[in-house]
Amino acid sequence: MPYGKGRTYKKVEVIGVSSAGIEEAIQQAVTKAQKSLEKLSWFEVEEVRGHIGDDGKVSEYQVIIKVAFELK
Amino acid sequence: MPYGKGRTYKKVEVIGVSSAGIEEAIQQAVTKAQKSLEKLSWFEVEEVRGHIGDDGKVSEYQVIIKVAFELK
Amino acid sequence: MPYGKGRTYKKVEVIGVSSAGIEEAIQQAVTKAQKSLEKLSWFEVEEVRGHIGDDGKVSEYQVIIKVAFELK
Amino acid sequence: MPYGKGRTYKKVEVIGVSSAGIEEAIQQAVTKAQKSLEKLSWFEVEEVRGHIGDDGKVSEYQVIIKVAFELK
Amino acid sequence: MPYGKGRTYKKVEVIGVSSAGIEEAIQQAVTKAQKSLEKLSWFEVEEVRGHIGDDGKVSEYQVIIKVAFELK
Amino acid sequence: MPYGKGRTYKKVEVIGVSSAGIEEAIQQAVTKAQKSLEKLSWFEVEEVRGHIGDDGKVSEYQVIIKVAFELK
Amino acid sequence: MPYGKGRTYKKVEVIGVSSAGIEEAIQQAVTKAQKSLEKLSWFEVEEVRGHIGDDGKVSEYQVIIKVAFELK
Amino acid sequence: MPYGKGRTYKKVEVIGVSSAGIEEAIQQAVTKAQKSLEKLSWFEVEEVRGHIGDDGKVSEYQVIIKVAFELK
Amino acid sequence: MPYGKGRTYKKVEVIGVSSAGIEEAIQQAVTKAQKSLEKLSWFEVEEVRGHIGDDGKVSEYQVIIKVAFELK
Amino acid sequence: MPYGKGRTYKKVEVIGVSSAGIEEAIQQAVTKAQKSLEKLSWFEVEEVRGHIGDDGKVSEYQVIIKVAFELK
Amino acid sequence: MPYGKGRTYKKVEVIGVSSAGIEEAIQQAVTKAQKSLEKLSWFEVEEVRGHIGDDGKVSEYQVIIKVAFELK
Amino acid sequence: MPYGKGRTYKKVEVIGVSSAGIEEAIQQAVTKAQKSLEKLSWFEVEEVRGHIGDDGKVSEYQVIIKVAFELK
Repeated sequence: MPYGKGRTYKKVEVIGVSSAGIEEAIQQAVTKAQKSLEKLSWFEVEEVRGHIGDDGKVSEYQVIIKVAFELK
Repeated sequence: MPYGKGRTYKKVEVIGVSSAGIEEAIQQAVTKAQKSLEKLSWFEVEEVRGHIGDDGKVSEYQVIIKVAFELK
Repeated sequence: MPYGKGRTYKKVEVIGVSSAGIEEAIQQAVTKAQKSLEKLSWFEVEEVRGHIGDDGKVSEYQVIIKVAFELK
Repeated sequence: MPYGKGRTYKKVEVIGVSSAGIEEAIQQAVTKAQKSLEKLSWFEVEEVRGHIGDDGKVSEYQVIIKVAFELK
Repeated sequence: MPYGKGRTYKKVEVIGVSSAGIEEAIQQAVTKAQKSLEKLSWFEVEEVRGHIGDDGKVSEYQVIIKVAFELK
Repeated sequence: MPYGKGRTYKKVEVIGVSSAGIEEAIQQAVTKAQKSLEKLSWFEVEEVRGHIGDDGKVSEYQVIIKVAFELK
Repeated sequence: MPYGKGRTYKKVEVIGVSSAGIEEAIQQAVTKAQKSLEKLSWFEVEEVRGHIGDDGKVSEYQVIIKVAFELK
Repeated sequence: MPYGKGRTYKKVEVIGVSSAGIEEAIQQAVTKAQKSLEKLSWFEVEEVRGHIGDDGKVSEYQVIIKVAFELK
Repeated sequence: MPYGKGRTYKKVEVIGVSSAGIEEAIQQAVTKAQKSLEKLSWFEVEEVRGHIGDDGKVSEYQVIIKVAFELK
Repeated sequence: MPYGKGRTYKKVEVIGVSSAGIEEAIQQAVTKAQKSLEKLSWFEVEEVRGHIGDDGKVSEYQVIIKVAFELK
Repeated sequence: MPYGKGRTYKKVEVIGVSSAGIEEAIQQAVTKAQKSLEKLSWFEVEEVRGHIGDDGKVSEYQVIIKVAFELK
Repeated sequence: MPYGKGRTYKKVEVIGVSSAGIEEAIQQAVTKAQKSLEKLSWFEVEEVRGHIGDDGKVSEYQVIIKVAFELK
């Protein structure tokens, strides 16, 4: 991206969920968001949460991210 | 919702306005957002503001919320 | 806008980029957002960043704003 | 209010107290502030707190708001 | 409470849930917390969230509060 | 101002509005605040917002600042 | 103060300066604010800063506090 | 959990420590907290820190989380 | 404490009150918390407030801290 | 900059001062920081403040920014 | 480190980049910072961001941390 | 310092440790920072923490401050 030229980006907030880990939950959100939005450029992690199962194990990670993409 | 399965949610920021009270303004925003978005799952209150009329009465409550829904 | 009547607004986060200055980057984002969204009512500046060129000059301002518009 | 004309507003922080509820505490603060300040235009809720009586009931709501009015 | 004397308070974070409204969710949390803790003195609202039912109605309010009580 | 001597300042929150730009809105607020308050010493920008006209142009900048002045 | 009765408080932001220490700067601000405002009820520390002299010693503490008083 | 029924949750802040990674530190905190508290429902990450050994390697991750559980 | 070994800490929020000063209010909270909790490791100051007497003197400092201790 | 390759950046906080405007104060800080640091990549605005002269005019803008540069 | 003895630490903000994951990006920043600074003691994660490639995969994690070291 | 002239300041984050009190920990950090940096102008307190000894006494105060100095 050449700097100094007028461009516009939009940021959208999505939540990815995965039992595998934090990086997997991020990728999960990016993959799904990519389907309905234009090509994504970057993400920012807003919050990391998760669910705890009856056995006391973390059963899933819920990662709230913002994804940004260029408005053509 | 079964935990541990990959899911993705999206959050959208809306503002509901009502003269009746804070809960009514929240419901107002949820009802209108439901029309153009998919089925909503939950909301989070971001900010509560309002307008004051010439008679010194709160004439409306403006509640900024985030609503979340699952991306299918 | 008559106060006290139920209305709903939506806020969307966009990033304007301009080499001319902060106000120009805001206008850049508003102009582009206006094309795909309904008539915009107001904006709020979230963050001001920028790129620095090899010559040590600020080569562009990147202004992250939220724009709001009424949901009809 | 016609947009684009120079205007100035001032914001003042007040705390309303009421045993009836959050909306009543807001109105309580607005009514009292109106007496010593010029005509108020809007409010923003900063914080909601309250006192708990010996019987375990919320005996009063304390709502900290900012009220704004135009400086003529 | 006479000011100027050494006292110690403890704050605990609880979440009250009610379908009736925000004030009811606060009271719900206070009532339940009162059972296992000592006499409560005050509360502070941290966050207001809620669930949205299939019919698009707010089906419950979830209010996160901190409650404080004196350590004897 | 000689350091180390007891002094007291007060901060007041004002909002300046101008269609010309952010610096003009700051000066607008300072000029008006100066009329009713004592000589001002400094300002701090709290928030930058604005209105968007029907033609998609930023029709005014609204800058919320705190101004400080010495209490004699 | 009997709980449950409608009351209104106002908060004002002042800065106390003292070379003696943080507590002295707080008292300095409270004493001066008391002169022009009604009887003060409580204070909240917002920020602690200070000036460093040529000899590398802290030459004064600047404590920004909010003071609250009841609006009669 | 059926929505709309009165429930109360409590949140407790714990810090898990592990040399293996962030997810392991979270699980470490959850496992230990589970022993003294009731069945946990979810967690929220507050802060991620860590210690750096003499060899310049991250020797442990310290993750501050809040865990929530229902008050029966 | 040897780094790299699994450990868990818990943080609890307490408020110390003292008329003598900020450090004394911190110590007051630590001393009382120590009685009912396990051996404390560290504290973090969250907020400093206080009461102002009829004579315009700070009659007590209220310091909200978090104290942390190891869960054995 | 090719994505995916290990790189490290450092951020430094500087304050630029200019009587001309906010953009000029940013450039002022960047120019001076460039002299003692390596080639700068980007900046982020942290805070905008300023001094008010005896004539009630903003006599200078003080802009606190973070500048980032790659550690080679 | 024996507690109670005068010591001074400095904190520096660095950004590590790695395609492998969050922990690898942290270690990357620590390793590079260690070369130019004195022996590091601990780190604190400030922000987690990343780049998304054309194939919709997270192509790198960018982790902003603060590292602290003792000033001898 | 004459206002209105271009100047640049840098802020650095340091942590002072002292068993005597908060003011002493601030001075400790300033004195040590002064040795390696240019003449310091002011400080801002970011955070106050401390260690608790086996006897339940605060054994040291750890004060994180930012110190600022002019870049010549």
